[in-house]
Amino acid sequence: MTTPAEVLAAVAARGWTVAAAESLTGGLLVAALVEVPGASAVLRGGVVAYATDLKASLLGVDAALLAERGAVDPDVAAAMASGVRIVARADVGLATTGVAGPEPQDGKAPGLAYVAVATPERTSVRRLDLEGDRPAVRAGTVDAVMTLAVEVLTPGR
Amino acid sequence: MTTPAEVLAAVAARGWTVAAAESLTGGLLVAALVEVPGASAVLRGGVVAYATDLKASLLGVDAALLAERGAVDPDVAAAMASGVRIVARADVGLATTGVAGPEPQDGKAPGLAYVAVATPERTSVRRLDLEGDRPAVRAGTVDAVMTLAVEVLTPGR
Repeated sequence: MTTPAEVLAAVAARGWTVAAAESLTGGLLVAALVEVPGASAVLRGGVVAYATDLKASLLGVDAALLAERGAVDPDVAAAMASGVRIVARADVGLATTGVAGPEPQDGKAPGLAYVAVATPERTSVRRLDLEGDRPAVRAGTVDAVMTLAVEVLTPGR
Repeated sequence: MTTPAEVLAAVAARGWTVAAAESLTGGLLVAALVEVPGASAVLRGGVVAYATDLKASLLGVDAALLAERGAVDPDVAAAMASGVRIVARADVGLATTGVAGPEPQDGKAPGLAYVAVATPERTSVRRLDLEGDRPAVRAGTVDAVMTLAVEVLTPGR
């Protein structure tokens, strides 16, 4: 488990700011970060692009990519993370997209999710295959993107 | 108490969709709505404009208004609700802005918050003076905007 405080500390240690772009987690990630005391020093905000078309209009994800692959895709996750860096004027973008279930989405199975972290230096994406009900998939996705963020942001790892 | 399910049912009863623009609640409102089964039929998404400048750049709130009054203001709340209707292409916009505390913000006391609901017909704003710590102020604000939404959306009330 990675805590929201660890994420914000890792961002602050680089002298950076952070924003979140969320699909299946629907605000859980940014809400977790907001609750950390002193969050406003590094947290810019977030975009919850729950409807697929908002991933294009609010986050700048390529509409052709969304049409071809659907919303649950590693390149879409990367584009969401890169996009929220720009629209929220943040140094670091975190992103989540996936299938909370219980029904498949765009032909993808429940529990499949992608998380991404974009920094001024690079963009990293991780595939998740999670078990459990909707709350479990969402919680697992939030934990995974925070873990990836700390890994990416911590020099020498 | 108003439940997220009641809000989405009231939106659906009008044949409308909904999006959220949040400041002090930081994603708690949209996260609560996302957890309702079937939410995707009416919930478009949301914007967490935690940093004040994002209220202008992401939601279209007048920068001069923000500069003059600060972020904790009834007209800012109304503009956030109207703005998220447009950027998220939703029929109904919900908005929260206020001081979670423990420190004052822009000269406003902790616990002061404004919630707003914008529909194709009208925009309603309510002032809140909440007691308690940061989680209590945030939870009270989420409840208040959901209550206002059901009032505004239910004909004959």
